[in-house]
Amino acid sequence: MTLAPIHAGQPVVERRAVMPDGFRAAGVAAGIKASGRPDVALIVASGGAVPAAAVFTPNRFAAAPVRLSRSNLTVSGMASAVVCTSGCANAATGAAGLADQERVGRIVSAAAGVAEPDVLHLSTGLIGTRLPLDRVEAGVTAAAAALDGSDAGLLAAAEAFRTTDSVVKVATTTFELASDSGSSTTIRVSGIAKGVGMIHPRMATMLSVVLTDASASPETLSAILRPAAARTWDQLTVDGDTSTNDTVFLLASGASGTSPVVLGTPAEAALRAAVEAVARDLARQQAADGEGATTLITCVARGARDDASARAIARAVVASSLVKAAVHGRDPNWGRIAGAAGNARLAEAEILEAAGLSAAEAARLAASPAELDPDRLRISIAGTAVFDGANGGPLPFDRSAVRSAMAAPEVVISLDLDLGDGDGEAFGCDLTETYVIENSEYTT
Amino acid sequence: MTLAPIHAGQPVVERRAVMPDGFRAAGVAAGIKASGRPDVALIVASGGAVPAAAVFTPNRFAAAPVRLSRSNLTVSGMASAVVCTSGCANAATGAAGLADQERVGRIVSAAAGVAEPDVLHLSTGLIGTRLPLDRVEAGVTAAAAALDGSDAGLLAAAEAFRTTDSVVKVATTTFELASDSGSSTTIRVSGIAKGVGMIHPRMATMLSVVLTDASASPETLSAILRPAAARTWDQLTVDGDTSTNDTVFLLASGASGTSPVVLGTPAEAALRAAVEAVARDLARQQAADGEGATTLITCVARGARDDASARAIARAVVASSLVKAAVHGRDPNWGRIAGAAGNARLAEAEILEAAGLSAAEAARLAASPAELDPDRLRISIAGTAVFDGANGGPLPFDRSAVRSAMAAPEVVISLDLDLGDGDGEAFGCDLTETYVIENSEYTT
Repeated sequence: MTLAPIHAGQPVVERRAVMPDGFRAAGVAAGIKASGRPDVALIVASGGAVPAAAVFTPNRFAAAPVRLSRSNLTVSGMASAVVCTSGCANAATGAAGLADQERVGRIVSAAAGVAEPDVLHLSTGLIGTRLPLDRVEAGVTAAAAALDGSDAGLLAAAEAFRTTDSVVKVATTTFELASDSGSSTTIRVSGIAKGVGMIHPRMATMLSVVLTDASASPETLSAILRPAAARTWDQLTVDGDTSTNDTVFLLASGASGTSPVVLGTPAEAALRAAVEAVARDLARQQAADGEGATTLITCVARGARDDASARAIARAVVASSLVKAAVHGRDPNWGRIAGAAGNARLAEAEILEAAGLSAAEAARLAASPAELDPDRLRISIAGTAVFDGANGGPLPFDRSAVRSAMAAPEVVISLDLDLGDGDGEAFGCDLTETYVIENSEYTT
Repeated sequence: MTLAPIHAGQPVVERRAVMPDGFRAAGVAAGIKASGRPDVALIVASGGAVPAAAVFTPNRFAAAPVRLSRSNLTVSGMASAVVCTSGCANAATGAAGLADQERVGRIVSAAAGVAEPDVLHLSTGLIGTRLPLDRVEAGVTAAAAALDGSDAGLLAAAEAFRTTDSVVKVATTTFELASDSGSSTTIRVSGIAKGVGMIHPRMATMLSVVLTDASASPETLSAILRPAAARTWDQLTVDGDTSTNDTVFLLASGASGTSPVVLGTPAEAALRAAVEAVARDLARQQAADGEGATTLITCVARGARDDASARAIARAVVASSLVKAAVHGRDPNWGRIAGAAGNARLAEAEILEAAGLSAAEAARLAASPAELDPDRLRISIAGTAVFDGANGGPLPFDRSAVRSAMAAPEVVISLDLDLGDGDGEAFGCDLTETYVIENSEYTT
């Protein structure tokens, strides 16, 4: 399940829960989920409020935790705690739901000894139901008493994030920074995430928290997080639906003792690469664990007019129901891939802005199709070239060999546009009968 | 399977093949399809070239018939014949495929006695395979010999359009126009269509031909067809994939003997309403016959800021995999409907331009989300109110009664945005295990 990043020299990511210095965490079972599994996670910055950045769902039905987190972060760009309730999304619950979430903030404030505006909120689960506040209060109090600065604490929090996730999703990496004393210090960047359905790229993420012991201002963290999300979570799709609760937080404790990371320096480049590598790996874990999925589909587009076009084309391929069904049937159906690529449109202005474009440029691009010339395009499936537009189109290939290669846990579809230097990738999963059954037989 | 149009007083449509005056048609089996079913359709204007208009797929992999038709129509806006081959899309076949299609034009020219640039082309079927020209030539020759100006001729052409369509798709309506002599003349508008998969709104249509015996210039026909497609076929989705071959033609024979329809007159309003009514009914037939579908899903959005927002929101609801799966399971899951509506984005500039906006205005709108206020939205499913944002959100309702109502062949989801006068509708179908099986087990 590993695929080299499209650019060489990216940080190596491990799928382990490794707690960065300066944070403590816990996960407990509070009875929100009928299953009795862990459902309240709490992460606390050990030394008081730390700089934070966030990316939120653009859904107009943004849930109460999203609305409250957005409002709290706007005040100071600082956070002392992250609380996550799993099993109830607290979405489409109106003013009463927002009041419930504010009550959760007061509970965390009292239990963990932090200021209420410094609490960030996450929740996930059924839309349209109210939080069981008594259970949440007991759970948060228990979690505050169990806070643990070891790796086990982070793993417990990640466990409590899960809803229908079949596996826990964690990722970690390191890089070296010069400390104030001039010696080299190892900086840790670790992320946890959940999400297997209602996932589609558009500022889209499911729940994720990325922690680092680097030191950086809220502005620096935001400048790093937004383009990293645009290249990773915004390139993830399971089923084309963007949830009401999607949120990513990035918190920097500064506990490594290194100087604040400044934009435009090598330290910023290192932190940016580490955050993006962790985000990319978590997005790949989410795609592989997509509802009903048996196969991770990665589309890599190279030679595009620009990176935004490459990402749009890769997204269109992994989002296609027909491509997803073909991969499920191990059918090297390059016609569906070509058709999907030919439909690609650049994403909304917000995503493009997140990638560093001006609003005017973003609006211009958002209205235009992604550049693609059928007479230059090359397509390969699972390593075998199947289409070359410059040489008559369809290529002869060993169909049974490609079918065998498509039985792997990951199928890579590669496109070369032959138009420029832009590249990008996107992550999805196959469409299976199980997806339909899971989503038609149960209310989720 | 009938639903009143959202505006009262629209023309009544019948699902019968009724040939307008001035056209002859035929459908024959030429052996392109392995099944031996009819696969070549030919429609010829009896009195020589007639005004025509078209809407084509925006797919960058536009098929050879699309490219040739676009080029031919640009020359004169007139057409003498429409030829359709079914079973081979002639898409992604490069320069050789375009040369094949030009050869089809010469075959039709010789067989039907029309000028080659006045031939319009349609094809549908597998992507990436070449047309069997010998069989096409024999089929076109046989079809030309069988041309029939009766209703049976139009039905034969409609039969030959089909690929995996389970039923033939025809629709017809009439309206009255004053003839040159001052008496009232009945004008006929009839359409035929095919398409059950790779269907998603964006200039999107599958193959359709709409014929009328009214008299109108190519410019008038184009001014009528584009907004009609924007309100009907562009609001149709089966699986989110826009095909390489989508095309609608509108041809006006003038054989009714009435004066040319002039833009801005009552005659134009009557023709516009008739064309849109036929288009809407064909789009609904296509949605109901979606691959693997058991239920037609219609979403009606009212009270939106404007019509474009209403259409975007309705489209987002019927395009949601989670809503589609919930309808399949007869689950009145309004949370998924709210989530999908909250994600709605206005369509690309081209669609908005088709609806009569300037390019600048279209580009501005294309970058913005559709207006929606969760605290004003009302949702009903199959006639039962389930959510009222202004009154706390979720409403109590009889779940088993709604589940029973959702067993009907059509499920209507109604949204009232309470923001303005805009309205719109969209058509889709449920997502079933059969869709996955059909599209993973066979190369189509």
